[in-house]
Amino acid sequence: MVTCLIGLGSNQGDRVGNLLAAIAALGEDPAISLQAVSSFVESAPVGGPAGQPNFFNGAAILATSLPAQALLTRLLDIELRLGRVRGERFGPRTIDLDLLLYGEQVIESPTLQVPHPRLRVRRFVLAPAAEIAGEMLVPALTDAEQRVSIETLCARLPDPAPSELGLRVIMSAAAMQRHVREIQLSGRRVGVVPTMGALHSGHLSLVQEARRRSDYVVATIFVNPTQFAPHEDFTKYPRTLDADLSALSAAGCQAAFVPSAEEMYPRGATTTVDPPEVALPLEGVCRPGHFRGVATIVLKLFHLIPAEVACFGQKDFQQALVIRRMVADLNVPIEVVVCPTVREADGLALSSRNRYLSAAERERALALSRALRQAEQSIQAGETESNRIVSAMRETLAAAGITSIDYVALADPETLAECSHVEGKTVALIACRVGSTRLIDNCLLDPTIDAGSAKRGAVRA
Amino acid sequence: MVTCLIGLGSNQGDRVGNLLAAIAALGEDPAISLQAVSSFVESAPVGGPAGQPNFFNGAAILATSLPAQALLTRLLDIELRLGRVRGERFGPRTIDLDLLLYGEQVIESPTLQVPHPRLRVRRFVLAPAAEIAGEMLVPALTDAEQRVSIETLCARLPDPAPSELGLRVIMSAAAMQRHVREIQLSGRRVGVVPTMGALHSGHLSLVQEARRRSDYVVATIFVNPTQFAPHEDFTKYPRTLDADLSALSAAGCQAAFVPSAEEMYPRGATTTVDPPEVALPLEGVCRPGHFRGVATIVLKLFHLIPAEVACFGQKDFQQALVIRRMVADLNVPIEVVVCPTVREADGLALSSRNRYLSAAERERALALSRALRQAEQSIQAGETESNRIVSAMRETLAAAGITSIDYVALADPETLAECSHVEGKTVALIACRVGSTRLIDNCLLDPTIDAGSAKRGAVRA
Repeated sequence: MVTCLIGLGSNQGDRVGNLLAAIAALGEDPAISLQAVSSFVESAPVGGPAGQPNFFNGAAILATSLPAQALLTRLLDIELRLGRVRGERFGPRTIDLDLLLYGEQVIESPTLQVPHPRLRVRRFVLAPAAEIAGEMLVPALTDAEQRVSIETLCARLPDPAPSELGLRVIMSAAAMQRHVREIQLSGRRVGVVPTMGALHSGHLSLVQEARRRSDYVVATIFVNPTQFAPHEDFTKYPRTLDADLSALSAAGCQAAFVPSAEEMYPRGATTTVDPPEVALPLEGVCRPGHFRGVATIVLKLFHLIPAEVACFGQKDFQQALVIRRMVADLNVPIEVVVCPTVREADGLALSSRNRYLSAAERERALALSRALRQAEQSIQAGETESNRIVSAMRETLAAAGITSIDYVALADPETLAECSHVEGKTVALIACRVGSTRLIDNCLLDPTIDAGSAKRGAVRA
Repeated sequence: MVTCLIGLGSNQGDRVGNLLAAIAALGEDPAISLQAVSSFVESAPVGGPAGQPNFFNGAAILATSLPAQALLTRLLDIELRLGRVRGERFGPRTIDLDLLLYGEQVIESPTLQVPHPRLRVRRFVLAPAAEIAGEMLVPALTDAEQRVSIETLCARLPDPAPSELGLRVIMSAAAMQRHVREIQLSGRRVGVVPTMGALHSGHLSLVQEARRRSDYVVATIFVNPTQFAPHEDFTKYPRTLDADLSALSAAGCQAAFVPSAEEMYPRGATTTVDPPEVALPLEGVCRPGHFRGVATIVLKLFHLIPAEVACFGQKDFQQALVIRRMVADLNVPIEVVVCPTVREADGLALSSRNRYLSAAERERALALSRALRQAEQSIQAGETESNRIVSAMRETLAAAGITSIDYVALADPETLAECSHVEGKTVALIACRVGSTRLIDNCLLDPTIDAGSAKRGAVRA
């Protein structure tokens, strides 16, 4: 068996998806034993036509008894299967697999040069390789070169250019934990933004808030199966990984944690978080088990990314409350920041599920923010009877043809106990179906402040 | 209202208990508003007769409208109520309360000097004070002195002598978290040993293992109410705080976290850990809810003391398994080390509950380790039928008059699934009552290794 270092790159289509598909193909080859896979790091293309997308690059270590040329054939075959079309040199590519090291052998043939002739100078190859095989030795190609470790080559590189320091995509829980520890040991504060992907400006506002409050922002993208009930939309939940990664990179996020379900829930894992009482009403009634799934995955993410600060959106009001309460109850050393709901110009709260809506449903969905605004206005006008406010809100929803209502409630914003009279700070919450799409929205109300200052926190349309 | 700094010390009786009683008395005085209480730090007595016990010293900040002399009277009154007998100067004392600062006033009277004339040079006062009131200003007593903050005075002290660096006792969750962070920022690895107090050599062996694996050891002493069922021995569980602290100090433990129940479970805290499946059999059947309590408190302690390593005893075999599994399932970034059971010379496993046993019960209790040793021997002799081994163990217990048996089991040491045949690594576990005292013990068995090497892990008598 020979230990080999493979370089992987993609800058076309679903880039990280392509890299993962290539890794999966390597893993399925019976002649190949996959040993380790690095994180993927974004970098600007070197050479080639202008305007190409950024690459994601990574490295893998494998052991094989295949001769080098046969291994190369397997790599080319995987490239072909994943849709690689060989075009111009340095041109864009769906997937690029390079055989960088074949043990410590030096191979010079018309079709294969090992070690790869530019291995010693390419950060986008050396840095991922150092993560998984720092002690692997690179044989000398010329008399002027020495046999040195990847780690040593990496340390010899000049300081990285900004174009070499793009988003880092981490799939492994252990690598994620190690990476955050390194960042923190360098004295930087870490912020985390847990998401299920399908990112919109609401998510990006959380990244921006995390940037304000920390030096290094990690977003997580994981569609958590345990927070969906069997009849819910887990399988059809939108997955837009490549666009998500581009958006995170553009927003100044430094790392994305994108684990597989197997990575987060290995066989035999059975410990869960029994969420706080505030998880019981409202969503807790409509989505049994939902908050157990949320609390468990968020606590796991807080352990994998023990950040100083975590940002969540007010849009998921009860979720934010469940997490704040869990953090307090379990003494989790993290500051939880809840950021304002981001809305479309016409008032619709941003949600990944909005993309399920037809144009007509999109129009009807405006009734949620309209009902919340009306509640706000009626409280400003002196109304205190919850029954009357809730009835008016339900009428607004009904007038838009929304009849499948899970709840319309006025509640204490700390305990979520429903209140019959609006006296102090109150939250108005709605959950309903528009067509087959379940939407939620909420608004904080405070009858004790005047209408002018209340407007600053208001639902805008 | 005037903000005052009080110094507290005790080196007689239940030292930390005395300090806490004095704090409680201050808190109950309607003329006094207690603002903050520091940790307590152990230090050798300064002056006085030889052979006195070490002191524990702390500081408190309070606000009061009492004149200084009246406040002093209250302090003296509390000293009297707590049994202080004024004897020789620098002699041992149950409780010592000093009025160190009364706002920024300078008071010179026959009975009261404020600031305390030796305040500026006493680490055992300045260090606790700096923890809660670093910015408080100490007025000048002479023309040569300057008005400076406590923090500045503290920084000016010479390096501490070993006698000034005893055990630190921390009661506050927030202070505990801050302290561990400071230790880790200084580059030291932290080890944690969770206990319920009533310490014996088994606990101290955990402290020693933690010392080997880290640079700074924190033991926790907390009799956790949520892991006791209503009919169990929570209220009569042995509490030996002063002896525990002396033992921890002598064992080289640097800090003890000794929170109150209110500190660990503030009103309204309802989040719990639903423990892993391995919590279901054996103790899970006999003590419903026990492992939910254990998992929750241990996770809370891991958050308050985010150590690199935690040590637990094999004596509580299933507990160690529950914690290891929880740590893995929830990705808690801590290494869990399980240390061998410590036994008396005659084989009895050390337990805080052994002190409940009468002399006759103590003798009968030897049947537990004897039964385990017999199981080990019969497996070494080739026996593989669990039924026969368990029957023999039960007979051994019965022969000693032990009839109240919760379980005698041979199980897989990872899953605790009971096994009908002993083929690979197996754990033998016993839980029974001797008199009214519930005792547990266990032994790892491995029929695949020879008797000679098996002996090294054996139950010794």
